[in-house]
Amino acid sequence: MRFSVSLMLGGAALALGGCAATAPAAPQVTTPPALTQAQIASQVGEAATPESPPAGQQWLFGSAEGSITMRQTWDSIASYTEAAARNRPVFSVVLEPGASASDARRVPCGDRPPAAVFDADETLLWNLGAMRQFALRNQSFDPALWLAWERTGAGHAVATPGAIEAFNRMRAAGVTVIVNTNRTQGNAEGTIATLRAAGLGDFVHGQSLYLMGDAPDGTGKDGRRAMISARYCVVALVGDQLGDIADTFNERGLTVTARRQRAESPAFASLWNHGWFVLPNPVYGPSIRGSFDDVFPPESRWEPPVTQP
Amino acid sequence: MRFSVSLMLGGAALALGGCAATAPAAPQVTTPPALTQAQIASQVGEAATPESPPAGQQWLFGSAEGSITMRQTWDSIASYTEAAARNRPVFSVVLEPGASASDARRVPCGDRPPAAVFDADETLLWNLGAMRQFALRNQSFDPALWLAWERTGAGHAVATPGAIEAFNRMRAAGVTVIVNTNRTQGNAEGTIATLRAAGLGDFVHGQSLYLMGDAPDGTGKDGRRAMISARYCVVALVGDQLGDIADTFNERGLTVTARRQRAESPAFASLWNHGWFVLPNPVYGPSIRGSFDDVFPPESRWEPPVTQP
Repeated sequence: MRFSVSLMLGGAALALGGCAATAPAAPQVTTPPALTQAQIASQVGEAATPESPPAGQQWLFGSAEGSITMRQTWDSIASYTEAAARNRPVFSVVLEPGASASDARRVPCGDRPPAAVFDADETLLWNLGAMRQFALRNQSFDPALWLAWERTGAGHAVATPGAIEAFNRMRAAGVTVIVNTNRTQGNAEGTIATLRAAGLGDFVHGQSLYLMGDAPDGTGKDGRRAMISARYCVVALVGDQLGDIADTFNERGLTVTARRQRAESPAFASLWNHGWFVLPNPVYGPSIRGSFDDVFPPESRWEPPVTQP
Repeated sequence: MRFSVSLMLGGAALALGGCAATAPAAPQVTTPPALTQAQIASQVGEAATPESPPAGQQWLFGSAEGSITMRQTWDSIASYTEAAARNRPVFSVVLEPGASASDARRVPCGDRPPAAVFDADETLLWNLGAMRQFALRNQSFDPALWLAWERTGAGHAVATPGAIEAFNRMRAAGVTVIVNTNRTQGNAEGTIATLRAAGLGDFVHGQSLYLMGDAPDGTGKDGRRAMISARYCVVALVGDQLGDIADTFNERGLTVTARRQRAESPAFASLWNHGWFVLPNPVYGPSIRGSFDDVFPPESRWEPPVTQP
């Protein structure tokens, strides 16, 4: 027997809950609250169904909350970058080769002009065409489909909410915007066309666009950050995953907990929201990882009390 | 036949993709890229399995990216609120009754002292104990379990990353922090204990803690915002869903698209990140809603090109 509450909200059928009687540790607890079904629905939303994209896509690409969260972050990025361009910092926000959480040295700026460096996918671009295809096929990723998307996706991606306004502000402040992406060199034309069609401007491979293979470290981006740092003072690094900031966060063998602790370490704490910026992406990436024990620390092991019959 | 790429990353087995041959519109497209499996894994992460919490929980509660995104927003909230407390604004960030996207009047502050108003769940508190139970049971929500959680969850929830530091800064700036939550009046004690155990401080029902039922509008929060506005100049409103900002965003019958357009309307645009703040929650709430057509606009309807055999 399945427990479920079916609700109507705005004309859409909602299915909340769904507790198999065979699930472990599900004692009867207490009487449900004196809420109407519509009141509950307004709080917890609508469960994804086989006819819906995954919840992460609903939140990020569809919802007001996803859009506003992106816009807030882009506003912070633009404000920080405008101020940094005025203040001409002594140090870049790019870590020196060999820097670590115990020795967070950063590249000196000299008199190089300011630049801000951005990942492309799910940072500047929402790859809606490819994401829709993955969701329709119940896939999280398909390398062949993705390569076709790099080549032919122009016009089917959109700029992330707030990105164009932030680019306008940063460019007006004299900051060069540079893309550092793991899209492939062979598809440079498609990537340039996709960025242009999304309204983000014109990019030139090797000048304002860096692709996987431009430096010898593969999907690592530190090599390309060093190349960019030779020409610019990087005042902002922006991405949807920590590899867009520094490769130390994607070191092989890091556990979920150790990776998070490294990001939160005192040496790096003052950089987040002040030169280092992460945009939300609960859809794919190295953040989508972890067992119950990784995600839920010991203090979260609550069991509901069993009520007397 | 299922297409799948199994990878090892940090000792964990990764399953990427998984395309049923019977899925619609899945022509063969092109040769996979010359990437190693580990390179692909570092880009797209690990698909959730029956032994993993849902991807949204992995991202929000487990990942470095989720933690950093929260910390960035809390830093922006604290910085904005500190400045507002110094500048003594003429108008609160609470909308006047009857205000709308075409008439965004806000409550005058008079000489009332500054306060910041926060939702509790997935804003101040990550309800890890309840979320873990929902995930173990493959439920999105269970009203009875939730009520038991309100009563007995203290010690099994944590403050969201960055919240305690932000509270310290705001309190030092002379700003009263107030919680406005849809937890129930009957469980006020449990909620107060949960906030205290998470390190967020001591709250008093009717003074610094407002619960569902304190005003006659049910799960709506405008009534309680009016009560708070009678005593304070509200300089910041913070939540994980737009009902924490103004009830207009949860109006019955609003489509996914119309709700997002309302949030992005010119009248409100300048308030986001400047008094109105949303924290990411891709796990539950009114943001988890929408069909493929709601989430993916017409321009996203890309089909991969079919290659010649």
